[in-house]
Amino acid sequence: MTVTAMSCKSIPKTYKALAYKEPGKISTEVVELETPEPKAGEVLVKLSHSGWGFLPEPVKAGQVGGHEGVGTVAKLGPGSEELGVSVGDRVGIKWIAFACGSCAPCLVGADGICEKQQVSGYSVPGTFQQYTLAPAHYVTPIPDGLPSELAAPLLCGGVTAYSALKKSGAQAGDWVVVAGAGGGLGHLALQLGGRGMGFRMIGLDMGNKEELIKICGAEVFIDISKELLGCDGQTLSKHVLAATDGKGASAVVVCSPNHTAYAQALNYLKFNGTLVCVGVPGGDPTPIANAYPHLMVAKQLRIVGSSVGSRKDAIETLEMASRGIVKTHYRLEHPHSIDEVFRTMQAGKLQGRAVLDLESEAWVV
Amino acid sequence: MTVTAMSCKSIPKTYKALAYKEPGKISTEVVELETPEPKAGEVLVKLSHSGWGFLPEPVKAGQVGGHEGVGTVAKLGPGSEELGVSVGDRVGIKWIAFACGSCAPCLVGADGICEKQQVSGYSVPGTFQQYTLAPAHYVTPIPDGLPSELAAPLLCGGVTAYSALKKSGAQAGDWVVVAGAGGGLGHLALQLGGRGMGFRMIGLDMGNKEELIKICGAEVFIDISKELLGCDGQTLSKHVLAATDGKGASAVVVCSPNHTAYAQALNYLKFNGTLVCVGVPGGDPTPIANAYPHLMVAKQLRIVGSSVGSRKDAIETLEMASRGIVKTHYRLEHPHSIDEVFRTMQAGKLQGRAVLDLESEAWVV
Amino acid sequence: MTVTAMSCKSIPKTYKALAYKEPGKISTEVVELETPEPKAGEVLVKLSHSGWGFLPEPVKAGQVGGHEGVGTVAKLGPGSEELGVSVGDRVGIKWIAFACGSCAPCLVGADGICEKQQVSGYSVPGTFQQYTLAPAHYVTPIPDGLPSELAAPLLCGGVTAYSALKKSGAQAGDWVVVAGAGGGLGHLALQLGGRGMGFRMIGLDMGNKEELIKICGAEVFIDISKELLGCDGQTLSKHVLAATDGKGASAVVVCSPNHTAYAQALNYLKFNGTLVCVGVPGGDPTPIANAYPHLMVAKQLRIVGSSVGSRKDAIETLEMASRGIVKTHYRLEHPHSIDEVFRTMQAGKLQGRAVLDLESEAWVV
Amino acid sequence: MTVTAMSCKSIPKTYKALAYKEPGKISTEVVELETPEPKAGEVLVKLSHSGWGFLPEPVKAGQVGGHEGVGTVAKLGPGSEELGVSVGDRVGIKWIAFACGSCAPCLVGADGICEKQQVSGYSVPGTFQQYTLAPAHYVTPIPDGLPSELAAPLLCGGVTAYSALKKSGAQAGDWVVVAGAGGGLGHLALQLGGRGMGFRMIGLDMGNKEELIKICGAEVFIDISKELLGCDGQTLSKHVLAATDGKGASAVVVCSPNHTAYAQALNYLKFNGTLVCVGVPGGDPTPIANAYPHLMVAKQLRIVGSSVGSRKDAIETLEMASRGIVKTHYRLEHPHSIDEVFRTMQAGKLQGRAVLDLESEAWVV
Repeated sequence: MTVTAMSCKSIPKTYKALAYKEPGKISTEVVELETPEPKAGEVLVKLSHSGWGFLPEPVKAGQVGGHEGVGTVAKLGPGSEELGVSVGDRVGIKWIAFACGSCAPCLVGADGICEKQQVSGYSVPGTFQQYTLAPAHYVTPIPDGLPSELAAPLLCGGVTAYSALKKSGAQAGDWVVVAGAGGGLGHLALQLGGRGMGFRMIGLDMGNKEELIKICGAEVFIDISKELLGCDGQTLSKHVLAATDGKGASAVVVCSPNHTAYAQALNYLKFNGTLVCVGVPGGDPTPIANAYPHLMVAKQLRIVGSSVGSRKDAIETLEMASRGIVKTHYRLEHPHSIDEVFRTMQAGKLQGRAVLDLESEAWVV
Repeated sequence: MTVTAMSCKSIPKTYKALAYKEPGKISTEVVELETPEPKAGEVLVKLSHSGWGFLPEPVKAGQVGGHEGVGTVAKLGPGSEELGVSVGDRVGIKWIAFACGSCAPCLVGADGICEKQQVSGYSVPGTFQQYTLAPAHYVTPIPDGLPSELAAPLLCGGVTAYSALKKSGAQAGDWVVVAGAGGGLGHLALQLGGRGMGFRMIGLDMGNKEELIKICGAEVFIDISKELLGCDGQTLSKHVLAATDGKGASAVVVCSPNHTAYAQALNYLKFNGTLVCVGVPGGDPTPIANAYPHLMVAKQLRIVGSSVGSRKDAIETLEMASRGIVKTHYRLEHPHSIDEVFRTMQAGKLQGRAVLDLESEAWVV
Repeated sequence: MTVTAMSCKSIPKTYKALAYKEPGKISTEVVELETPEPKAGEVLVKLSHSGWGFLPEPVKAGQVGGHEGVGTVAKLGPGSEELGVSVGDRVGIKWIAFACGSCAPCLVGADGICEKQQVSGYSVPGTFQQYTLAPAHYVTPIPDGLPSELAAPLLCGGVTAYSALKKSGAQAGDWVVVAGAGGGLGHLALQLGGRGMGFRMIGLDMGNKEELIKICGAEVFIDISKELLGCDGQTLSKHVLAATDGKGASAVVVCSPNHTAYAQALNYLKFNGTLVCVGVPGGDPTPIANAYPHLMVAKQLRIVGSSVGSRKDAIETLEMASRGIVKTHYRLEHPHSIDEVFRTMQAGKLQGRAVLDLESEAWVV
Repeated sequence: MTVTAMSCKSIPKTYKALAYKEPGKISTEVVELETPEPKAGEVLVKLSHSGWGFLPEPVKAGQVGGHEGVGTVAKLGPGSEELGVSVGDRVGIKWIAFACGSCAPCLVGADGICEKQQVSGYSVPGTFQQYTLAPAHYVTPIPDGLPSELAAPLLCGGVTAYSALKKSGAQAGDWVVVAGAGGGLGHLALQLGGRGMGFRMIGLDMGNKEELIKICGAEVFIDISKELLGCDGQTLSKHVLAATDGKGASAVVVCSPNHTAYAQALNYLKFNGTLVCVGVPGGDPTPIANAYPHLMVAKQLRIVGSSVGSRKDAIETLEMASRGIVKTHYRLEHPHSIDEVFRTMQAGKLQGRAVLDLESEAWVV
C-alpha cells in the first residue's frame, strides 16, 4: 500500500460546520474549522449526510451538533488500516462516537454505557460538519447498496430501536407493543420488529399517526388519544388484551419519554412479559407508577433498561435496512434550513425525520 | 402388580389435622378428618413432617394450614402409577399443591403462576395433617439420604430462594446480595447461591443475624441497623461498593417484604445488574421508590419478579440439600405447640425455622 | 356441567381403521374396531384428517398406522375436563402420542425423548382411524380458522421443522440452510424460518424442487444435482459462501437422511455456526464424515440433535399456520387410496404431502 | 501526566530471550535482542514469568517461544494510556497475543478465532523473553494479591479450561466429566468447574494421576487404564452412569488430544448433554467415531468446539485464582533449564507445570 492510497488528495485545509451559538436554544451558525489530522487509531471521515434527532442540547457554545452521520473515509491515522478500514470506505458515526472496547460494559457489548464513552455532538464535535475524526475501530461499515441518506438516520434511532427489541426477550410470533410508535424511534421499532424479527407489532400513539404506523407494519394500531389516560391504563389494557386473544403482550418497548406510557405498560403485559425502558421522561425523577413488587411477582414481569446499542447491533440494523426491511421516512434538508427544521421539530410538526445534506451547494454561499 | 402393592394395609379411616379456628388469628385446633380416597392421577400421602412458614392466613374457618411437607405415598389413585410414583416413595408437597402442567405458564416452567394452581393450606388442605391427597405428577421425590425433617422446610422456602437466584442471571463468581439474609428465605438463598451456585454472597440484615449469616456462607455481612435507612440508601451503597471493589453487585434478591429494601437495591447494583423481587410488602401498593426510567436506562438495570419455583427447581434444590449444600436451621415441634410457635414467629423471636412432627406421640391424647 | 355435555351422543360402537397387514410392506386393510372408553385423563377423539408421512414401519401385524391427525373431542375420561379440554374442541395428535410431562426430558420441554413416550402408529394405534384415544394433557388445540386438513400434516413435520430451527440458535437476519429443502420437512422449515422467524433461507435439493423451494420463500436455491457430491462438499461450499457474502451460513438444518448432506454441512458453516441433525440415515451407523475435533475447535462449530418438538413448539407452529405463514402443499386422499399413495411415496413421486380424509364417504362400502 | 510517568527509567537497550534454533526440535538458545519501542496502542511489558505449555512448534528458526506470561508495563506507546493501562501495572500476555476486537468473531467475544489474531510464540515473539510488546487493549490485568508465578500458567491453560466449561452449558449441580483430567488443562478445569462454578466433577485419566485429580476437587476419579479402551467405551460408560445415579453426565470437556477420549464421550452423556472439543488429535483428520446423526437425535446431544477464551474469560479466570479457587501445581525453572524441561515434558514425566523465572539470576552469565 502506498502513501497515496492512505488518503484522498483533495482534503481541504478548512471545512464548514454548524455550531450551536446558544446551546439549549435554536440558534446555530455556520463556522469554518481547520481540518484535523487523524491520530493513531483514528480516521478522518468526509461526511455526506447527518441525521437530526434532538433539539440543541444545553452544551457549551460553539459545540458542533449532530449525533449520527454517514460519510467516506478520507484519511487514516497511524495503525488504523490494521483495524480493517480503508480510504474510500463508506462508514457511519453513531450516537456513541467512541467506546473503548475494553471496560466491563464494553466486554459484554454494552457500548451504550461504556465507561469512557464520547457522545457525538455533545462531548465531541458531532455530525453537523463536513469532516470529522472518528475511531477506526468504532465506525460502522455501510453495506453496499444502502444509500447514505437512508443509513444516516438509523445510526442512532435504528440501532436504539433494534437493541431494545433484542433485549425484550420476545421471540418470533410474540406480540410486542411499541409505545410512541409514530415517533422517530417508534416507527423504526415497528419495522425492525415486525418485518425483521418476526414479532407481531402493536403501535400506540395519537390518532394522526395511524397511517404511518400501519405503513410501518403494525398489525394493530391503538389510538391513545381516545383513551382515558389514567395511570392504571385499564381501558388501554382492554384494547391490548382484545388484540392478543386475551393473553396480553409479551413485551413493550416504551419509546415515549412519558410517565403515563410507562405506567400503562405493566398492565397489558402477559406473564413473564418484559417492559423495555428507552424513552427518558424529563422533570423530577418519578418511578414507574405501578412497579409494585407484588405485581412483579404475581405475573413474573421484567423491567429492563436499554441504552443505545452495540457495534454488532449497528451492523445488523444496517443489514436489515439494506434488505429493505426498514425505511426511514425522511426529507432531505440544506444546511441553511437547520434552525427552521429545529423549530418544526419543536412544534411537533415534523413528519418523519429530517436528514441534513452536507454536500449541498447551499454551503457554498 | 397386585392390588396390595398399590396401597399400605394400615391406612386408618380417620386421621388428625390442625385447622384454623379463626383464620387470620393464632387459634388452631386438632380435628379428626375422614381419610379420603385418591382419585385418578392422585396419591394419598402419609405426612411425617411439615414446614411452618407464615402466620394463619385469613382464609375460611376450618382450613387446614401448612404449605410444605414430606411424607410417604400410602395409596395410588387410578392411573397414578403410570406417572412414576409408587407406594412407599417419600415425596414432598410444595407451596403450589397443584399445577396443571399444560397452561401457558406451566409450558415454560412457571409453575408458580399456573392458571389453575392450588395453594397448600390456602385453597386446598395443607400439610398440617397426617394424610393429604396430592397430584401424582406434582409431588417431589425426596432423595435417599435426605432426612424428611430437613427436606420439609425446603419445599417452599428453598425452592423459592433457588428459583430467584436462577432468575437473577448471575453467573459463577458474581457478587449477589440477599436483602433479608437472616430470614427463612434469605438464609437458604445464601447457602444455595454461595455453596451451590458459585456466587459470592453478601447478606444484609439486622446485627443479631450476623452469626447465622456468616454460618450460611456469606463472605460479607452488612448490618443495616447501623445504616441511615433513607430511601436512597447511599450509605448502604457505599458498603456494597466497598465490598465489591467499587463495582457494585451483579444481582440482589430481595427476600424482605420491605419497601426500603427494594428502594436501596437499585443503587448498589452494577451495570446490567438484576433486582429479583421475592418479598411482597403489605399495605397499600407502593412502587419501587427509584424505579426511574432514566436510572434503568443509564445502568441498563433489570427488575424481575419471581414466584416460587418449578418442579425442576424443587428437584434441584433437594439434590443440593442431599449433598449438604443447604441446611435449614430448625427445631422440631409437636402438634400441641403450634399456637405457641406461631406466637414466637409473630414476635420475631423464632431462631431458624420450626418443623412440625406429624408422627409425634403428642397427637395421641 | 351435565353428563350430556361430556360426550357426543352419536358415538358408534365400532369404527373403521386402516391396519398394516404385513408391516414393512405396502399392504393395508380396512378393519372394524370397537370404540374404546376414555380412561382417567384421556379423551376420545373423532379424527377427521391424518397426515401420511412414512412408509409402513416394520411393526406388528394389525398395527393401525398414521402419526399425525386432527379431529374433535367426542368424550372425556374422568378428570380430563380439569385439564382444559372440552367435548367439541378441535385437537391434534402428534408423532409423540403421549409424553409423561414429569420425567427429566419432559421437565425441560424435550417431549421428543420422554422416557415414557408412546409413538402414534407405532407403539400405540395411530391416526389412520376414525376414533382414537389420546391423553387430555397432550393433545394440541387447533386455532380457530385453521382448517383441519392444513393442520394435520403440521403436527409431526411442522413441529419437527420448527423445533429444529429454534435449536439452531440462529437469530433474525441470519442465513440458515435447509438440506433437503423440497421434502416434507424441508419445505415447512423454509416457510417457518423465513416468513415466521426472520431468517434468510437457503434451500438445497435436486433441480426439480426449485419451484416449490422458491414458493416456500427461500432467497437462494442451490441445485445439488449439479454439484460434485464429494464428501468434502467444496463446490457446494463455494455456492453457499457466494450467497452469504463470503461469510458462510449461521446454521443448517439437515432434513435429508443422507450422509453426504451431513458431511457437506460443516464446510459451509460460519464460525460459531450450528448443524442441526434431524434426518436419520439408514444403514450401518456412520459418523458425520468431517466431525473432526480440529475443525470443531478452529471454527467453534456446534452440532445439535433435535427430536420432534414440544407441546409449546406445536402450539407455536399452529399459530404460525393460522396466520398464513406456513402452508402444506397437499392433496386430499380417500381411505381406499392408501396403498396407492404409499407406492407413489416409495417411488419418490409424491408432490407435496398427502392428507387422508377420514370422513370420506369412501369408507362406506 | 509527565513523560516520566509514562515509562520506567531503567529500560535497557537490549535484553535476553530464548529462541528456537531448530523449531520442532528441542534446541533453544539465549539471544540478545534490542528493546523495541511501543507503537500507537502498544505497551512494552517487562516480563517476570512465563508458562511453558507445548513443545517447540515447527516455526521459523529464531522464533522466540512461550505463549503465556506475566510482567509489568514498562512503557506506553502513543494513545495507550487512554486504553486504561498505566506504567507499573502488572499484566498478562495470553496465547492470543492480539485480537482485533472488531471482526465478526471478536464482536461476539470469540477472541480465539479472531480473523486477525496473532499467537504468542508462534506468529509473534512469545513470552520466553525479558521484554515484549503487547497491545494495550488486549493485556489482562493481574488482580492484586495473585502472585505472578501463579498467574502466568493460567493465561493460556486456565482461560481455555474456563471458557470450555462455560460453553458446556452445564449449570450448577450438574455432573461434568473432564477427559484428560490430570493434564495441564484438565487439572485446571477440575478446579474451576468444581470449586468455582458449582459443577460436580468427574476426572478421567491414568491411575498415577489419581492423587492430583482428587486434590483438584474431583468427586469421582475413573482410571481409564483399567478399562477396555474400545471405541464404544461401554465399560467406561458403566462407571460414569454408576457415578451419576444412572443418568449420565451433563457435559464432558475433552482436554485429551485423543480419538478414543472423543469416541467414548458421547456414550456417557445424558440427554441434552454436551461434548466440548478442546484437545486436538494429531495425525490424519478423523471424525469423532460415533458422531452418528441417529445418536445425536435420539439423545438430543450437542458437540461444541471451543478455542481458547475471551478477554472477559481471562479476567474471570484470574479473579477465581485470586480467590484461591484454582491453583496451578508448578515448579519454578531457570532459563538455562529450558531444554531439560522440554525433554521432561516430551517424556510425559513433568509433574504439574513448569514456570520460567525470567528475572532469574541465571540469565546473568
